[in-house]
Amino acid sequence: MSETVAELGEKAILQRLQPYCSGDKLGDDAAVLEPLPGFLLVVSTDMLVDGVHFSDRTTSPFDIGWRTAAANLSDLAAMGATPLGLTVGLGLPPSLPVDQLEQIYQGISACLQQHRTTVIGGDICRSEVLTLSMTALGQVTPQQQILRTTAQPGDAILVTGPHGGSRAGLEILQNPEWGESISQDDRIALCRAHQRPQPRLDVLPLLRQHYPDKRVAGMDSSDGLADAVLQICRASDVGAVLTGLPIPLMFTTIDPQLAQEWTLYGGEDFELVLCLPPTAAAAVAQSIGPNAKVIGQIVAGQTVTLMPPTPAATARTLTLQQGFQHFGAPATN
Amino acid sequence: MSETVAELGEKAILQRLQPYCSGDKLGDDAAVLEPLPGFLLVVSTDMLVDGVHFSDRTTSPFDIGWRTAAANLSDLAAMGATPLGLTVGLGLPPSLPVDQLEQIYQGISACLQQHRTTVIGGDICRSEVLTLSMTALGQVTPQQQILRTTAQPGDAILVTGPHGGSRAGLEILQNPEWGESISQDDRIALCRAHQRPQPRLDVLPLLRQHYPDKRVAGMDSSDGLADAVLQICRASDVGAVLTGLPIPLMFTTIDPQLAQEWTLYGGEDFELVLCLPPTAAAAVAQSIGPNAKVIGQIVAGQTVTLMPPTPAATARTLTLQQGFQHFGAPATN
Repeated sequence: MSETVAELGEKAILQRLQPYCSGDKLGDDAAVLEPLPGFLLVVSTDMLVDGVHFSDRTTSPFDIGWRTAAANLSDLAAMGATPLGLTVGLGLPPSLPVDQLEQIYQGISACLQQHRTTVIGGDICRSEVLTLSMTALGQVTPQQQILRTTAQPGDAILVTGPHGGSRAGLEILQNPEWGESISQDDRIALCRAHQRPQPRLDVLPLLRQHYPDKRVAGMDSSDGLADAVLQICRASDVGAVLTGLPIPLMFTTIDPQLAQEWTLYGGEDFELVLCLPPTAAAAVAQSIGPNAKVIGQIVAGQTVTLMPPTPAATARTLTLQQGFQHFGAPATN
Repeated sequence: MSETVAELGEKAILQRLQPYCSGDKLGDDAAVLEPLPGFLLVVSTDMLVDGVHFSDRTTSPFDIGWRTAAANLSDLAAMGATPLGLTVGLGLPPSLPVDQLEQIYQGISACLQQHRTTVIGGDICRSEVLTLSMTALGQVTPQQQILRTTAQPGDAILVTGPHGGSRAGLEILQNPEWGESISQDDRIALCRAHQRPQPRLDVLPLLRQHYPDKRVAGMDSSDGLADAVLQICRASDVGAVLTGLPIPLMFTTIDPQLAQEWTLYGGEDFELVLCLPPTAAAAVAQSIGPNAKVIGQIVAGQTVTLMPPTPAATARTLTLQQGFQHFGAPATN
């Protein structure tokens, strides 16, 4: 049996976690960073709670750490910012085995290492329910900021990857009998999409290479693809027409209606939804690879319309009401 | 009856909280700040949990917000940094009345306004237990950084105010029959010390005026005066001799032993404990006012010794073990 958090005590816990954090920065009252001259500082906070955002059934302690880190880095990517470091606030049940706490930190630092950044500080405290609160710090030049407010009619809407995989992975983890028509390899890939999402910081250098220092509007799709398009449209006071959804290839054997709903509203895919002129969008999409796709365009007005697959069917208007809501609903994952 | 968090829903809650936050910065995935050129960025995270760090019996929703903000600003002051903004992560029980949530935010913004800063972003989510996680961002020049590691033998130890008041205030709130020898006005002042602590950002300009761009070691006394002196000594590899404790005047009628323990180990006074040459310390103390006090000096070695009030009594060696520990103990406030 691993020792519990209560048995080990706060100062010993901090010592145990030190290897996962940046050298000498943890000791003082605060961490110190040095942003590059001329860069803006970008700050994003995410909070995840056991039983609401994850459960042991679908998420190992390592993956809890990974997903929280990935969600935060995704918020930086959504702003066009590269990471400077992250702080971690941890609310810990006294009965939590210290092994599990270490696994959470291993997950956090594995994800951060991939993106060449680290934990620079934080706080731990006792709580009835395991809680992670992370704040990511990044930097971006004013020219390379990605905002929600600057989409313009005529822009192409580019997504950096398929959507709905995380939701399907969650379904498989919760109901292993679901989706038997999907191959074993694809099932594993879907679970992985849920458990180890990849923030798309890799897209930023490609954007800079193929469309340097130009206006790009956008955000990430953490709350779902439909939510991202609708939020961008509302913030930019424009509408959109979606002509082809980024449905994952492996969804071809499942109910088409469900495939469409999960692609639009599943959430937690952590891709980027970017609005930029069509030629630039095509060049950037090609540099990202076959998973990137132009899914429609920005138009005047305020309506987001999903065009039907055949001319005979009816177009659908998307609304925020169908989207993700954290309160009032029971825990879904 | 006020609506609950569950009834209102996430997006409506965010709209309700918008007036307490900085203008247009809440809408995007992350907030954007522009630190001054040549300044270092200082980042500090604190997490507070209902039943552990506060309870309705001793802390109103307004004061929960105030204290969390004050603790974070105090961490910036402890580094010599002036605030750029704060992010707030909130874990909310669905049954929480929205009124109370607004009062928490009113407390946060009242405290921040006093120090000319604001909430720049954050996250809200559902949680069984009310949880606040704040990250404060500040800036400081490399020369004006206050570190724990740079105290030197011969330095005077300056505290910016009396210690133990917050602990006594908590006692009065929990056991109203306690301390009847203390006047009603003083009892109110002690409760206020607990409920509305003041981060000592006001000390920074005085330090710069009376001891410009010179080495100052130190930290805040959020975990107790003894803890602060011991942490500084450990980080700087020095010892200290304390000759006169900053016991609040109104403690003269209570048990002297208890007065000393609360002054050393009470915690949450959020004063600064600063180490600098004696002449500078005297000048800074005078500029702060009569509550500031030189309590001893840094010496070679590793021991922190508390000199007895009379030559006949025995000196006492202070240790971290007597200090504040967040785990394993029941909630005390």
